[in-house]
Amino acid sequence: MTVTAELLGSLGGIFADRMSVADAVREHHSHGESYHPPAPPDVVVYPKTTEEVSAIARLCSAHRTPMVPFGAGTSLEGHVSALAGGVCIDLSEMNRILRVSPEDLDATVEAGVTRKQLTEELKASGLTFFLDPGADASIGGMVATGASGTTAVRYGTIRDNVLGLTVVLATGEVIRTGGRARKSSAGYDLTRLMIGSEGTLGIVTEITLKLQPLPDAISAASCSFPTLAAAVDTVIAAIQLGIPVARAELLDERSMDALERFSKLGYPIQPTLFFEFHGASDASVAEQAQAMKEIAAEQGGGDFRWATTLEERTKLWHARHEMANASLMLRPGCKGWATDVCVPISKLAECIRETRIDNDSSPLIGPILGHVGDGNFHCIYLLDPARPEEIAEAKRLNDRLVDRALALGGTCTGEHGIGYGKMASLAKEHGDLVPVMRAIKRALDPDGLLNPGKIFPM
Amino acid sequence: MTVTAELLGSLGGIFADRMSVADAVREHHSHGESYHPPAPPDVVVYPKTTEEVSAIARLCSAHRTPMVPFGAGTSLEGHVSALAGGVCIDLSEMNRILRVSPEDLDATVEAGVTRKQLTEELKASGLTFFLDPGADASIGGMVATGASGTTAVRYGTIRDNVLGLTVVLATGEVIRTGGRARKSSAGYDLTRLMIGSEGTLGIVTEITLKLQPLPDAISAASCSFPTLAAAVDTVIAAIQLGIPVARAELLDERSMDALERFSKLGYPIQPTLFFEFHGASDASVAEQAQAMKEIAAEQGGGDFRWATTLEERTKLWHARHEMANASLMLRPGCKGWATDVCVPISKLAECIRETRIDNDSSPLIGPILGHVGDGNFHCIYLLDPARPEEIAEAKRLNDRLVDRALALGGTCTGEHGIGYGKMASLAKEHGDLVPVMRAIKRALDPDGLLNPGKIFPM
Repeated sequence: MTVTAELLGSLGGIFADRMSVADAVREHHSHGESYHPPAPPDVVVYPKTTEEVSAIARLCSAHRTPMVPFGAGTSLEGHVSALAGGVCIDLSEMNRILRVSPEDLDATVEAGVTRKQLTEELKASGLTFFLDPGADASIGGMVATGASGTTAVRYGTIRDNVLGLTVVLATGEVIRTGGRARKSSAGYDLTRLMIGSEGTLGIVTEITLKLQPLPDAISAASCSFPTLAAAVDTVIAAIQLGIPVARAELLDERSMDALERFSKLGYPIQPTLFFEFHGASDASVAEQAQAMKEIAAEQGGGDFRWATTLEERTKLWHARHEMANASLMLRPGCKGWATDVCVPISKLAECIRETRIDNDSSPLIGPILGHVGDGNFHCIYLLDPARPEEIAEAKRLNDRLVDRALALGGTCTGEHGIGYGKMASLAKEHGDLVPVMRAIKRALDPDGLLNPGKIFPM
Repeated sequence: MTVTAELLGSLGGIFADRMSVADAVREHHSHGESYHPPAPPDVVVYPKTTEEVSAIARLCSAHRTPMVPFGAGTSLEGHVSALAGGVCIDLSEMNRILRVSPEDLDATVEAGVTRKQLTEELKASGLTFFLDPGADASIGGMVATGASGTTAVRYGTIRDNVLGLTVVLATGEVIRTGGRARKSSAGYDLTRLMIGSEGTLGIVTEITLKLQPLPDAISAASCSFPTLAAAVDTVIAAIQLGIPVARAELLDERSMDALERFSKLGYPIQPTLFFEFHGASDASVAEQAQAMKEIAAEQGGGDFRWATTLEERTKLWHARHEMANASLMLRPGCKGWATDVCVPISKLAECIRETRIDNDSSPLIGPILGHVGDGNFHCIYLLDPARPEEIAEAKRLNDRLVDRALALGGTCTGEHGIGYGKMASLAKEHGDLVPVMRAIKRALDPDGLLNPGKIFPM
């Protein structure tokens, strides 16, 4: 236990009943949604304000005690595991939407607000926040990991949608990066330095976000293909032609099998693309859809199955979002090892083809799915974490996949981040950058108290 | 002179005739396009490769000599002035387009490639690079200042359009940030840390850029308004309605007067908006234009004057781009002090109205123009740099404008950067961030050799 009785006492003086050392609570905060071995913090505190987070950081800093920020616990590379024990700062009670400005298409929210909460509360405003990593992640967690998801092909990643941040530094000092102007060249871009820094440079407590007007017309559709290559080539052609598709999701047969078992929507068990089109008018949506249908037909795609009403669309995307859970049902009791490479779109077909060959020859089940409009896709390897040979096999497949992606000019992680699961891959991809990252880390957190053991060894 | 004979000798051994200590060359490299007092470097070198830039940095580092990167010399806050002397690294001979990949909509260019060179060389590919700060800046310079310009309202700023960078650090070490994947969460976002760092953290030598397909349909138009407020309100309404306008430029009467004297295109001397619409079809462009016309009509706007052919559009935007030069002709022999605030769109009308009142009561001429779709606008105060009272008056007006923008939730610089002209404004806007920026600077450049005296005092 790295937390002293004195520190516990000081925290208790502030947080009283908003603090826990119970085993069940510590266990809940020891892991995300992945296979990584859990590592519980010594204590979990639930601040309600930036000032309270600052107070925690001042105390931890004085006691040289690790701090691990925790959002919704949906991350996939062990980001929230308290590898060196210490204090878990659970931000779920910082869940207020502080301001929505429809006239400026922006909002400021606390870090614990979740994606679904935000889109729900925005409904009356005519605006929305499209970023959608699947899980009901917290906005703070999405900032920390540099998240994106199904709509990034049209609306960008979280990096493109944050205007400013409130951040508590290791010392407890509170800084405010960026602002509400749509653009600024006022010094170093600390907003984007913090995005994707996984809680290792500071604790994000408030986020100012760009919002989007709800499109006047939205339509979604699915289309089945005879081969995985045909589905992939359809998306590549659409991107190269500049069709402004809002979502373009690929699911291979194995994924469709899982989806059908879970959701029973009657889709054929074939490689499938799920699309969404957004426009200012039905005509504009129809124009995009027609262009896409022509491309799909050239690749042997079947008829488009439309989901036009809100209810139909909700059902379609809900099924897609439940894919992680659906995959796990292919092998009850297992955990998922989710890969996350992203390659230039011209290399996507090759990367998926070779990955599929690997998967087909492995004893592990590994459905392929992804945000292919960005060149980003996942395999979900289903394994029993108690079996070292299965972990080793998933690692072997993932290592081959990362090497393949890097050789094709891609990255080891499009959106899940490094955590402690991908540190070796980061070193492989950006060995020249790790010393620079480390120098920045040491400049801002010389004692290494913020989420230690993540992204790179200190 | 901070450059020793030994360092000069070592540089001469490498660069021979690609190096100069001539007064005229040093003078040319002592300033950008602004009123700031020039400060010449001791020597100017013209590397052709990243390796040569690395060699210069190794030598300068060993001799603890300042290095100032120089692109096209078009910056507006004294960024390239060699305040502590030293070696000016002129990147204009690094002007090769290294790779264009139409299938991935990206390209890699050397830092000295200029915007116009790039768009010219891309013509055959069906792709383009829309970012347009007006001046024919180098791409490296645009990265260094965090530039944007007329098309940012639709295509984003340089921050949104860079995938990766090659950067020479103070030590001479070469790093490669980002990559060719459309998105990545692989550790700290050093690409965006370098963008806007104005040569103080490293020397950018190569840039991988996102490109855009040339739209199938483009149309531009101008529209005159009875009042400045009516023109501003038209743009605000368009942005709030989500019309995907590609350009929305405001010019006040004073700007139109300058433009007419310079370009003689027959525009009325009234507040004017210049628009450009991009679409996948004529119908889509017509739909956007019709929506804009309806909004403009509600505000008392006159007829749209269309520029549909490439020749007409080129003439229109050429005139807009020559506005800085045209303004200078309102007072022959003067220099321009360009302001650069950016505010939330809902505050734009108020900010421009109060600024106009200031300008109308000042003895200095200060036309107002700007990229108002982003909330960003400029005054160009025309002054004689030899007259301290004129500098003081421009400073008074700019200080009031910056204070006004900050009070409205805006920034002191939307796109020009800090240089050494806006260090006090940065401290006012982000006093809490300057120590963090300084810590990062010291971590990467402990001797303060990279472009010293810029952004913040070391």
